[in-house]
Amino acid sequence: MQVKTVDWQRRFNAWWLLPLLLGLVCSVQAQAPVDLPSWHDGAAKARIVAFVSAVTEPGSKDFVPPAERIAVFDNDGTLWSEQPVYFQALFARDRIKALASKHPEWKTKEPYASLLKGDLKTAMAGDEKALQQAIMVAHTGMTSDEFSAIVTDWIATARHPSTGRLLTDMTFQPMKELLAYLRANGFKTFIVSGGGIEFMRPWAERVYGVPPEQVIGSSIKTKYEVRGKGTAGKPVLVRLPELNFVNDKSGKPVGIQQHIGRRPIAAFGNSDGDFEMLEWTTRESGARLGVIVHHDDAEREFAYDRKSHVGQLARGLDEAGARGWTVVSMKADWKLVFAPAR
Amino acid sequence: MQVKTVDWQRRFNAWWLLPLLLGLVCSVQAQAPVDLPSWHDGAAKARIVAFVSAVTEPGSKDFVPPAERIAVFDNDGTLWSEQPVYFQALFARDRIKALASKHPEWKTKEPYASLLKGDLKTAMAGDEKALQQAIMVAHTGMTSDEFSAIVTDWIATARHPSTGRLLTDMTFQPMKELLAYLRANGFKTFIVSGGGIEFMRPWAERVYGVPPEQVIGSSIKTKYEVRGKGTAGKPVLVRLPELNFVNDKSGKPVGIQQHIGRRPIAAFGNSDGDFEMLEWTTRESGARLGVIVHHDDAEREFAYDRKSHVGQLARGLDEAGARGWTVVSMKADWKLVFAPAR
Repeated sequence: MQVKTVDWQRRFNAWWLLPLLLGLVCSVQAQAPVDLPSWHDGAAKARIVAFVSAVTEPGSKDFVPPAERIAVFDNDGTLWSEQPVYFQALFARDRIKALASKHPEWKTKEPYASLLKGDLKTAMAGDEKALQQAIMVAHTGMTSDEFSAIVTDWIATARHPSTGRLLTDMTFQPMKELLAYLRANGFKTFIVSGGGIEFMRPWAERVYGVPPEQVIGSSIKTKYEVRGKGTAGKPVLVRLPELNFVNDKSGKPVGIQQHIGRRPIAAFGNSDGDFEMLEWTTRESGARLGVIVHHDDAEREFAYDRKSHVGQLARGLDEAGARGWTVVSMKADWKLVFAPAR
Repeated sequence: MQVKTVDWQRRFNAWWLLPLLLGLVCSVQAQAPVDLPSWHDGAAKARIVAFVSAVTEPGSKDFVPPAERIAVFDNDGTLWSEQPVYFQALFARDRIKALASKHPEWKTKEPYASLLKGDLKTAMAGDEKALQQAIMVAHTGMTSDEFSAIVTDWIATARHPSTGRLLTDMTFQPMKELLAYLRANGFKTFIVSGGGIEFMRPWAERVYGVPPEQVIGSSIKTKYEVRGKGTAGKPVLVRLPELNFVNDKSGKPVGIQQHIGRRPIAAFGNSDGDFEMLEWTTRESGARLGVIVHHDDAEREFAYDRKSHVGQLARGLDEAGARGWTVVSMKADWKLVFAPAR
């Protein structure tokens, strides 16, 4: 073997290959090949791939420098399921349960009584102000670090009421591939959700590859406080029972501008709560992509749109054509919805 | 030559060098050498370099993964000068001047009358509510895109009242090197300023290399509005004369959590307005860096601290030692303050 190798090396002058090899290895290192394996070949996938090619190919008339390749994704109903209720409502219910031993009066007080019985439907149909107050109780009073730990613990085991799957396993595999595909093409991916910003951050990086600083959501006010005296004092941020910002509907463009400071070039949503985000993103010159995920797959997920109590989608369906938005059929465009159980 | 090369190749089996070369070239490509040429060798520079080594060296007990290498920088007085007034006050003055023809009543109304005469001192010494209102007038009423264009035009020519230099040339060269040095070591650099978030974004990327989504500041409220009907309507964000958030003092940790969602490991400030930001950053286990830029160089910049009307620094000086914060002397630690005029 040794002799053969030396012979071959003598015959073959390989030095000229070196720069080629260096270039190849470095470019592979910089840009790993990422594909969309869970997407059927069809109009939706073709539109997405054509858009990405148009904005990334050097010399293309629609070329966009990497720094400006901002893509925004709604979360509930776009990256994970939102039926029968927003999953954050399950968190609020479980948190009320965990606090119940300190509040014996909750046994007879709504919406707590229903929440403690696990009857979300009754709890959510009752007095709205009382419900909002209960949601505040579930989300505030602790420090930001404590809340993060509470959410981290909860999401590790929280399961869906009808499928019994971990909630983090009810994230959409095709959308996770899309996030990775966009990032591999130089995009910076943001979550822009009506859900709580601090409810998503503890797990968005692990589950979606989106770091905390790229998560935008609704928020409550916090207060800086130093516990203890002088240089030994420990600073905390206390979560106050006061709304700070509602990142939904026309609030989404406001949240996007506040956090990102530039207009996205691609937006992904599923409900009319995302309408203004898609409008803000796509009503601008240059290549723009607006995508609506349509829940039309009762077998593998849920089917709902115009009349749903969560994730209502009507205006988006009516105007998608005229606005050049792509409507993704979960049934027809996705080979699978969720990754197989682990 | 040809023959010689072939001979040398025959004698020297270079294949084993290939992986080494590949590694070397790829790592050089990934990590360009960045230095701190405008910093004197001294305790401050040594502390900064030691911290960066500690958190970046694989296997170090203080190693921090790149995603968590968050560094936050105040702007006024830390990245550029802030005397005789915050530079944003010059913008407000110039904006009032530009609007004056439409407001003849301003000639006799304070603080407008003083601002129009260029007398910032009198304007700022007068009624605080009237001054705040004038600042609102200068910053609101237009769309976010229009405001960005106004700031971009203004900063292109705005000059300092005493040095006559472009304001963007009054940014501190050693701090710009520090931003680049941290980024070359895997840090994500953020600006966390009491100044207006939309006032900084139009030029922070060009001047500091900090993209809009990494600029945090004070803000006013905005409102999403669609101008025109139906799909032809053009969406805008209108800047309203209402304060949204003051990103100063104990507001800085709040702003950091809202935008970044994780605790920085390094913070750079110059005044007591940065105290809570440094406290929040450094009062946590693991390697932490807190740095205060001390304005003690009357010859090359300005000298002020405890009694200054802008950038007051007293508690920071008193407690820096006990808190392990590094005080940078502009006079002793910096070879130059500003880059030479172009």
